[in-house]
Amino acid sequence: MNFADRLCAAVDRCGTPAVLGLDPRPEHLPAPWRRRPGEAGAGEIAECIRAWQMRLLELAAPRLPMVKPQAAFYERWGPPGMEALAEACARARELGMLVLLDGKRGDIGSTAAAYADAWLRGDGFPAADALTVNPYLGEDACRPFLDRARECGAGLFFLVKTSNPGAGLFQDHGEPPLAEAVACAVHRWGEELQGESGWSGAGAVIGATRPGELARFRELLPRALLLLPGFGFQGGTAEGLAPAFDARGHGAVVPASRSLLHAHEREDLAGRGWEEAFLAAVEEMVAALRTVCPLPSS
Amino acid sequence: MNFADRLCAAVDRCGTPAVLGLDPRPEHLPAPWRRRPGEAGAGEIAECIRAWQMRLLELAAPRLPMVKPQAAFYERWGPPGMEALAEACARARELGMLVLLDGKRGDIGSTAAAYADAWLRGDGFPAADALTVNPYLGEDACRPFLDRARECGAGLFFLVKTSNPGAGLFQDHGEPPLAEAVACAVHRWGEELQGESGWSGAGAVIGATRPGELARFRELLPRALLLLPGFGFQGGTAEGLAPAFDARGHGAVVPASRSLLHAHEREDLAGRGWEEAFLAAVEEMVAALRTVCPLPSS
Repeated sequence: MNFADRLCAAVDRCGTPAVLGLDPRPEHLPAPWRRRPGEAGAGEIAECIRAWQMRLLELAAPRLPMVKPQAAFYERWGPPGMEALAEACARARELGMLVLLDGKRGDIGSTAAAYADAWLRGDGFPAADALTVNPYLGEDACRPFLDRARECGAGLFFLVKTSNPGAGLFQDHGEPPLAEAVACAVHRWGEELQGESGWSGAGAVIGATRPGELARFRELLPRALLLLPGFGFQGGTAEGLAPAFDARGHGAVVPASRSLLHAHEREDLAGRGWEEAFLAAVEEMVAALRTVCPLPSS
Repeated sequence: MNFADRLCAAVDRCGTPAVLGLDPRPEHLPAPWRRRPGEAGAGEIAECIRAWQMRLLELAAPRLPMVKPQAAFYERWGPPGMEALAEACARARELGMLVLLDGKRGDIGSTAAAYADAWLRGDGFPAADALTVNPYLGEDACRPFLDRARECGAGLFFLVKTSNPGAGLFQDHGEPPLAEAVACAVHRWGEELQGESGWSGAGAVIGATRPGELARFRELLPRALLLLPGFGFQGGTAEGLAPAFDARGHGAVVPASRSLLHAHEREDLAGRGWEEAFLAAVEEMVAALRTVCPLPSS
């Protein structure tokens, strides 16, 4: 089944478009696994991440449709970190979650093909359901990602307007702004990954930190699944995300990592143990998104 | 010592700005290690790459100042591939070569910091001397790379105008073209990584496939080291690269991968064995670059 259709089904099943961002920071892991920088080697840190994420994914899988591992926080620990990343992807899929690998990869054609094979085909790493892609190199450089995604029934989320405060420096360059030109290209490419749901697996990343622009990007990208990062820790709120969703609550997903993964550090949740704190933060997020995304409760 | 100064010294020592691009494609490895797609698993392919690259680096180290491993061709083979990448970086440094990790990474601030730590600090992977960076996310997203590079004495090569045929789609967007706006930002950032040589370790990637534009980018980037990919297999030639170099032959490096790594597949070199074919292709490239880069022969 096409990625867009799989994602719509998973969102319906869980009753929420909330996505678990998996950005393991050793100094913020719950107590048994927490390690300060410099206190432990890469191998030990990777072991801590593995133990923690196995339990985390079990807690998350019944509640959230997709997990978004951030490659950087695994690369940080070298080959043992990459083993931990492979294990996270494999375990999440076993538990029935979709996996969006957040690597923001991009390179010229033949190299882009190697990245697409690395993450979407399952030869080296367990195949992810979708990958984030940086479009700076142009259409011919995005082509191998599109081809592999079509072959594998996978999805892609192209960076259009990112969630960081300085995103506009280059993404607003020119008239129309570059991000709008990228959005138009993503819309064009989207026909190739169109699902029966009407949504396309050629998606776009639009920061949840700038709801004012969302309606404009939805206009340019009427069929693209949107990934709306920046919710929670980065200051994005549910308010203003409504234009991303259709009447059935489809069309966008909202990842959060720090606001969920570090919930045990919140004073109001600290007494409860990390598992309960995590689940409470997940429920808070699900409830906040329900105000803008009209999904029936699961 | 600052990266720019280390690179100038290494280029002087070898008498050439030629850089070995390390893009292992299993189906093009020399006979004992060659594997067709689907014929072998990731573990076996990674073993073949490891055995081959150990010998290749020994051959290259006396002749070439720097090696540029392409992360995609290692990620392709999952965790065993990443082990092979770590080994390539470590061995090249032992042999006295500089290492430029070609990962084209880029993400929002806190994630960019994790990528910079992964590749420049040596905690997870052996520390590279320099990293390629995708600037699409803006200055705040490039900041952690700049900070880590300054702390570690490392270099960065920001994508400005890439070597692929369709690079202009987004990189020529607006007026002035986006690539020129990125070049101006890289020039500004360059002060932070300035070496005693006068060159800055905040470098730029400008495709060798478009020599017509090189003089313009050199004007905008008077102190940036330039990485000029696309020589050889992608059609770039030495002709026209002269504006990249100063009177001492400093200021740019020229990577080649397929034209060197697949030399044993050339009919005119096939009879000689892969090691001799590789060295012959290296000498051809060194001689071709000597016509535009006025370095004394080593």
